[in-house]
Amino acid sequence: MTGVLVSWNDGAAKRAIVEFVERIVSDVPVEERVAVFDNDGTLWCEKPMPIQADFILSRLFEMAEADPELRERQPWKAAHERDHAWLGAVIAEHYAGDDTKVRTLLGGVLAAFAGITVDEFEAKSDEFLRTVRHPILGRGYLECSYVPMVELLGYLDANGFSNYIASGGGRDFMRPISQEVYAIPRERVIGSASTLEYVSNGNGGTITHKPEADYLDDGGQKPIRIWSRIGRRPVLAAGNSNGDIPMLEFTRHRDRPFLPLLLLHDDADREFAYTDGAGRQSGKPTRTAGPS
Amino acid sequence: MTGVLVSWNDGAAKRAIVEFVERIVSDVPVEERVAVFDNDGTLWCEKPMPIQADFILSRLFEMAEADPELRERQPWKAAHERDHAWLGAVIAEHYAGDDTKVRTLLGGVLAAFAGITVDEFEAKSDEFLRTVRHPILGRGYLECSYVPMVELLGYLDANGFSNYIASGGGRDFMRPISQEVYAIPRERVIGSASTLEYVSNGNGGTITHKPEADYLDDGGQKPIRIWSRIGRRPVLAAGNSNGDIPMLEFTRHRDRPFLPLLLLHDDADREFAYTDGAGRQSGKPTRTAGPS
Repeated sequence: MTGVLVSWNDGAAKRAIVEFVERIVSDVPVEERVAVFDNDGTLWCEKPMPIQADFILSRLFEMAEADPELRERQPWKAAHERDHAWLGAVIAEHYAGDDTKVRTLLGGVLAAFAGITVDEFEAKSDEFLRTVRHPILGRGYLECSYVPMVELLGYLDANGFSNYIASGGGRDFMRPISQEVYAIPRERVIGSASTLEYVSNGNGGTITHKPEADYLDDGGQKPIRIWSRIGRRPVLAAGNSNGDIPMLEFTRHRDRPFLPLLLLHDDADREFAYTDGAGRQSGKPTRTAGPS
Repeated sequence: MTGVLVSWNDGAAKRAIVEFVERIVSDVPVEERVAVFDNDGTLWCEKPMPIQADFILSRLFEMAEADPELRERQPWKAAHERDHAWLGAVIAEHYAGDDTKVRTLLGGVLAAFAGITVDEFEAKSDEFLRTVRHPILGRGYLECSYVPMVELLGYLDANGFSNYIASGGGRDFMRPISQEVYAIPRERVIGSASTLEYVSNGNGGTITHKPEADYLDDGGQKPIRIWSRIGRRPVLAAGNSNGDIPMLEFTRHRDRPFLPLLLLHDDADREFAYTDGAGRQSGKPTRTAGPS
């Protein structure tokens, strides 16, 4: 175990990973070595709010600055007043099973990027991620990935794994930086998406965002999107919240090793200690339908 | 040009491809060398009907055998009576812009695989493709790919391209054989899909087909699905019908070489000569919305 996962403590988790990887390398063909990772709270920091939430709030703030009427309507009102209580309640109520505020927020989010081309969206995301600093940790957002997890990605890659992101966050939000931060190429980024529209214009055509969610890549949708994209059942999945449980379950193979990894946030000194959104038990049968 | 594309005639098409590939290799980084291929009529034979249509008709026939009431309803009636006129009209009317029969057929198709797991679907598809013979060409379906196109895939691959299928056919229908026939791995197969459902069962979960189309990967939907899957604008696209025009247009780059390839079926001796479904001109602005 010398020289691998150097920032990990020598303990059960590291031992389980190394033993698993050795078994996979010996027993499983390269093309079946698929590993999937949640992003927010698994590969990078999601407190005090997911990085994409900050991105969206910036955009809503900008819209409310330009249009005073929006300042009277949620979610623009909260964004403009920097009302963190309202925004925190969105997440808290979502985890408690009430998505009323989520829908209000989502309405704003969808309006925020309606009609924007995928290239414009990418440029906005790229610029945001490269310039804005984390509000508490005092560093740029691109320096908010977790060193041990980036080491794990590298260790898997060196052993023939294909690493994918399978995030509730926006696919096209993460793509501009996934190669640089995680060495995960953009075609291996799975995430939530808006409905898109293709407009032929005699000059290559454009793809634009419609104000309509296509799907939220969370919960039971994660295995569906993983299957749709990859066409294989992963042998390793890593997550940190209730929404990752189906993806963790989905690693189970009958005939080969598999490893679900659950990340616990207990490092209040260097990050944030929390378990909210991670209280549910696995194993209870559930059913999720959604577009493939 | 010696030793490459050996089954191609020495002519303008071959010359254009070789010159294009040489420019790409010299100017474009490997990760941007994305090539997308329609499947039916571009990589393999689609006459007298698309191979997947035969697969679906076999399933409808089987259902009608088991349930006499279905024999009075389309599309089971046509499948059971082997009514090729009705089935031919589906395609002809579709190309003429009337999708009434397409919807009837699609209703049957969706019912045909409702509730089947993705693993069961794959086993059915795999078995069909490996055992059924082409009704006219006198060979197994897996021997119905076009030699010059398979050579082209190999030539591109040898030059650092990533080849993808972007087909109107079913993604999960093609996946079991794409590696063997085209050396295209299953995660690079883009195609039409039904809506899927994830059911957690304490044993790895299952993904099943719902009787509902998620999207038909044709026309303006092709650039959308290509973007969603890959996150890049391809530099090469190959197709043979109206439904491929947006994908061909979508190759246009401002700052690097690009090559749209249109395949003309004019070899009645070894294949079929036809231009139906390929009469539309490119360049007319159109608009297509759909899930990403």
